[in-house]
Amino acid sequence: MKNAIVGQSGGPTAAINATLSGVIRGCFESKEIDKVYGMLNGIEGLFERRVCVLNDIMTSEADLVALEKTPAAALGSCRKKLPAIDTTDADDIEKYKKLFEILDEYNVGYFFYIGGNDSMDTIRKMSHFAKMFGSDIKFVGVPKTIDNDLDCTDHTPGYGSAAKYVATSVSEIIRDTAVYTVKAVTIVEIMGRDAGWLTASAALPTLFGKPAPDLVYLPEVPFSVDDFINDLKALLEKKPNIVVAVSEGVRDKHGAYIGESEQAGKIDAFGHKYLAGTGRVLESYVREYIGCKARTVEMSLLQRCAAHIASKTDIEESVRVGKYAVTLAVSGETGCMAAYERRAGSDYFCDCKKANIESVANVVRSVPRHFINSRGNNVTEDCLKWIAPLVEGESIPEFENGLPVHFSINR
Amino acid sequence: MKNAIVGQSGGPTAAINATLSGVIRGCFESKEIDKVYGMLNGIEGLFERRVCVLNDIMTSEADLVALEKTPAAALGSCRKKLPAIDTTDADDIEKYKKLFEILDEYNVGYFFYIGGNDSMDTIRKMSHFAKMFGSDIKFVGVPKTIDNDLDCTDHTPGYGSAAKYVATSVSEIIRDTAVYTVKAVTIVEIMGRDAGWLTASAALPTLFGKPAPDLVYLPEVPFSVDDFINDLKALLEKKPNIVVAVSEGVRDKHGAYIGESEQAGKIDAFGHKYLAGTGRVLESYVREYIGCKARTVEMSLLQRCAAHIASKTDIEESVRVGKYAVTLAVSGETGCMAAYERRAGSDYFCDCKKANIESVANVVRSVPRHFINSRGNNVTEDCLKWIAPLVEGESIPEFENGLPVHFSINR
Repeated sequence: MKNAIVGQSGGPTAAINATLSGVIRGCFESKEIDKVYGMLNGIEGLFERRVCVLNDIMTSEADLVALEKTPAAALGSCRKKLPAIDTTDADDIEKYKKLFEILDEYNVGYFFYIGGNDSMDTIRKMSHFAKMFGSDIKFVGVPKTIDNDLDCTDHTPGYGSAAKYVATSVSEIIRDTAVYTVKAVTIVEIMGRDAGWLTASAALPTLFGKPAPDLVYLPEVPFSVDDFINDLKALLEKKPNIVVAVSEGVRDKHGAYIGESEQAGKIDAFGHKYLAGTGRVLESYVREYIGCKARTVEMSLLQRCAAHIASKTDIEESVRVGKYAVTLAVSGETGCMAAYERRAGSDYFCDCKKANIESVANVVRSVPRHFINSRGNNVTEDCLKWIAPLVEGESIPEFENGLPVHFSINR
Repeated sequence: MKNAIVGQSGGPTAAINATLSGVIRGCFESKEIDKVYGMLNGIEGLFERRVCVLNDIMTSEADLVALEKTPAAALGSCRKKLPAIDTTDADDIEKYKKLFEILDEYNVGYFFYIGGNDSMDTIRKMSHFAKMFGSDIKFVGVPKTIDNDLDCTDHTPGYGSAAKYVATSVSEIIRDTAVYTVKAVTIVEIMGRDAGWLTASAALPTLFGKPAPDLVYLPEVPFSVDDFINDLKALLEKKPNIVVAVSEGVRDKHGAYIGESEQAGKIDAFGHKYLAGTGRVLESYVREYIGCKARTVEMSLLQRCAAHIASKTDIEESVRVGKYAVTLAVSGETGCMAAYERRAGSDYFCDCKKANIESVANVVRSVPRHFINSRGNNVTEDCLKWIAPLVEGESIPEFENGLPVHFSINR
């Protein structure tokens, strides 16, 4: 009987531990798998044999449930990229050989890696070298990213929870900004360098006739400062408080980031080039060309770690897709990713499916143009209908002494 | 039978609508009060006779409960300051006369104002002029502020909810920052220009042996950049990820705001003087003097409007103190504020009490020195024990379609 090993990689989300729990649950239930090891800090830790035995750590159902409601990566993460598949560098080949030696030491038959684009690339490479070295280890990836920009899956685990937090917080911000009669523009900067899925979620209340941002800008459409100012002026004629949701990654028609262009050449107190956030740059445009009060709220890390108001749909699906990855590996699949497929029909449900890793790795899935209105300053109803089921239900952790209970691997 | 009028003023909180609900509940239950008017945008709206009849708007228990879980000020707010009490300016006296005329038009006998320092000053002035004009109207203030810096009350409504959000979010941020092995300093900037109560709440997990910020800086103690850098260097010897909680209002030993000093003289793209946030300035110090990764999370508006994870204790008390204000007014009290008094003993409970408005208005209550450690880089156990009961319990709004249900006065 073989052992399994699981690792987490890339930026944390509120759901990546739910997927970890799913993989652990799948391994515990499988008759083909003996021990489940956890890589500490992903593949980076594996190189140093920094692993833990999850059978000794996750000793009760309560532990697994707590893990599912704990944000960030309980095993730690890394950003390590493995050498290219077509490398001819002997040192590079040595690295792969070392990894397989270590996996053999631990008698690993099943390797699970939870992460985004780069992590799926790791699965692709490892399964390639497994073939080359004649190794029997099965390599299966499980997606995660708040950006929802992975291909070959209906959506990504972690996106629904981040979207729920963004939509909830923006709803609250709108209430907050509505209390004064003085003209003011509030800009909410949301993560997403290349894909605007998360920013689009800020518009969700629109679908239900509730207060929503007045303007919504995604990186998929070139950003025009002139249009932005004109739209704002028209809106300020009608009401005093305007809320704008903007992706950090919006770019001008030449492809230059708005957050960079305006501040290029500016030097901070220490002589470093100053890169303002996109929100701050738009804020300065508002002050300059409109002259009213302007401020920025950056959702920053909060949007990816707010497990205290995660989407129940997202957390449940994340566990399910983790378990499904184990099913795939045990049935002999390798070099693939566990993914979601949305059922046709009006009742939302996602089945799990197998995705080809070659089609996933290193591809960014953008928001399609028809999900964005023609002026490029909001999303369409179709877009919101697509997002809406993903934020359904509340996954709230237990609270003890008024504070959320999180699970730690090193208790 | 007389009518009552209620207004909200100053910056929003997650609990100011709970206090409004308490005032409305108190008025509805009182046999001395006929109608309850709401001032739209506080005293500013009252000047323009912009009022609503709350009896027509709050028509069910469900409405009141939804109001209690809605962030910001449902009646709108303002920042208007009334002229000084000792004014001899005829125009100023006219303003007061006009306000009393309007109140008489609406047959108001009881005036409630929910707000912070400036709002209590409004109560002080209005009760003074009531005496001068021979008016019988009773003026009672009800506190609110996330800053917890009002005097003559154990704490302020709104503080507990903001503190719970800060402690919860910082706990999540700590999980997020802990996943990598690369040295990094994360600075969390928390509201509080003059008082560090809210920043202190970030340290709450310490009390229960959970991960908490490594360094905590309040405005009450002069901030030394040298000490900051030395403390960071010592911590980075022990672990790679450091989290710092800092009040936006920290100042150097000369009293200059850290958020201003470093950037003084810098000019932004439009020639405006650039005022960086305190977090960004500390971030640049970390890059310069330590050279590791550094980033800032500004809690911004989120910390004052996060009704989705409010403190149950805070919301319940906020309703109670609103009702108590009505009891005070109806029993003939005027020129006073409804306040909290903590019972002695180990079981936490706050009674409501009457506070003298002269002692409240325009006083800022700081965190006492013995609540801060001797090095000035964290708070003491006594401080955390004092804060802990205020964040107990979760007040979570209803969710519909995955989004929080808020109450709107203009439905």
